[in-house]
Amino acid sequence: MQNFSIDMRVSFGDCDPAGIVYYPNFFIWIDRVFHALLHENLGGHARACKELGAQGFGAMNTEMSFRSPALEGDLVSVQITGITWSGKSYSIDYQAHIGTRLVFEAVEVRGVFIRRDGRMRAGDVTPLKERLQQAGCL
Amino acid sequence: MQNFSIDMRVSFGDCDPAGIVYYPNFFIWIDRVFHALLHENLGGHARACKELGAQGFGAMNTEMSFRSPALEGDLVSVQITGITWSGKSYSIDYQAHIGTRLVFEAVEVRGVFIRRDGRMRAGDVTPLKERLQQAGCL
Amino acid sequence: MQNFSIDMRVSFGDCDPAGIVYYPNFFIWIDRVFHALLHENLGGHARACKELGAQGFGAMNTEMSFRSPALEGDLVSVQITGITWSGKSYSIDYQAHIGTRLVFEAVEVRGVFIRRDGRMRAGDVTPLKERLQQAGCL
Amino acid sequence: MQNFSIDMRVSFGDCDPAGIVYYPNFFIWIDRVFHALLHENLGGHARACKELGAQGFGAMNTEMSFRSPALEGDLVSVQITGITWSGKSYSIDYQAHIGTRLVFEAVEVRGVFIRRDGRMRAGDVTPLKERLQQAGCL
Repeated sequence: MQNFSIDMRVSFGDCDPAGIVYYPNFFIWIDRVFHALLHENLGGHARACKELGAQGFGAMNTEMSFRSPALEGDLVSVQITGITWSGKSYSIDYQAHIGTRLVFEAVEVRGVFIRRDGRMRAGDVTPLKERLQQAGCL
Repeated sequence: MQNFSIDMRVSFGDCDPAGIVYYPNFFIWIDRVFHALLHENLGGHARACKELGAQGFGAMNTEMSFRSPALEGDLVSVQITGITWSGKSYSIDYQAHIGTRLVFEAVEVRGVFIRRDGRMRAGDVTPLKERLQQAGCL
Repeated sequence: MQNFSIDMRVSFGDCDPAGIVYYPNFFIWIDRVFHALLHENLGGHARACKELGAQGFGAMNTEMSFRSPALEGDLVSVQITGITWSGKSYSIDYQAHIGTRLVFEAVEVRGVFIRRDGRMRAGDVTPLKERLQQAGCL
Repeated sequence: MQNFSIDMRVSFGDCDPAGIVYYPNFFIWIDRVFHALLHENLGGHARACKELGAQGFGAMNTEMSFRSPALEGDLVSVQITGITWSGKSYSIDYQAHIGTRLVFEAVEVRGVFIRRDGRMRAGDVTPLKERLQQAGCL
């Protein structure tokens, strides 16, 4: 796939008393990149749900390794470096850099959640993959 | 009305590089107190909406004065000190203390939002007031 | 002063169960604009503190009026529309728009905090004003 | 070790447009539990740093698996179920439940960061382990 990224300028309020970005904010940032990808390619979360008959694209698992700190004023580029598709889930790989320095690496495993028999279930991810291919994203 | 409060222990992650609570978190805390009041008296936001035929209880205006800082480890008691009812809005007064020391004072003006003619409007607040009275909150 | 603004794309995670931006996030956004102004004109919070012998630029009071909702995908322009200087404080006026539609108006009253006699005090704001003037911001 | 836990009442503002807790908040919650443990056993982050000559206890890696959703009003018990000590890191295992239902499982790998030769390094974790043992936590 093409790289997809957003730039985040680290603000004072993103940081903790150690003066570095408070790590849960990095998860907000990768979630923000995923939704920016949905926005640019499928018109946003709500429209993507509607077209795919889905309830959401929630995370099943997420992991992040912190490689170097980000400080106030740093410009952090957070990018999706790849998506791996399975039957009922897909893994999204992220990397964040300040210039060429790696700040973090992360993986989110997400589903395409549908309601069936009154329950939320992880459905087939093929329709989402195909829509992203049609949009030229993959 | 009876005082209604929750206690928040200031955690490392609540604080900014100056080592004090990052002020937007205080707005999260007063919003948390308001929803705790709904939870205890009306069974939560969703149930209150359903019973009142409302879409939500969103804020129209909010103001906060910061009187003294809160640091990691401090136990902050955030309380509702009064609610003033108007026709289509109500003002909720908050104070937060560490022991007897005042940390902040705040006011939220909120509505009872209803959908009419395809638009969201601020509706009559009397039904909400009456339900809180019945619950013994006012 | 010149207008100073940043654009925020509303992401899924910025929104609450009502599907609109959770209001404390708007305070994070105005704080982000203020620090972006410090970053662009004075090299950031840390450098500004060092040059001015200050401990911080914390808020004493803040108020916001919510004029219309912001939804996922909306592009919100958050701008500083003016700064009013007093002896020991300054008021920063903000407006946020989606296109021409007003989303919120806000005011932050901030200080230039210094340590004197072992206590934090609001100091003279003139040096900050002069530095922003020299940088061409005012 | 003894279980160590905090209870979090899910508030409206913790939830996203899908009506469930926005997952980065769960990372804020496990970080909050870790710092509550420091607070109760070592007097907080600042004091623990001072006594151990450390700069912080930052995360190197964190992973979370989402097992079932948490909704507004739910009472979530977030507990540390174990700590595994290595030479220069320690793994903290977390589980969160609503009653007996598992909400998430998580692991944080953290260090005891010290400054040496002008750089931040992961130091020996033994002093932290011993202090927690003396405090009766392990």
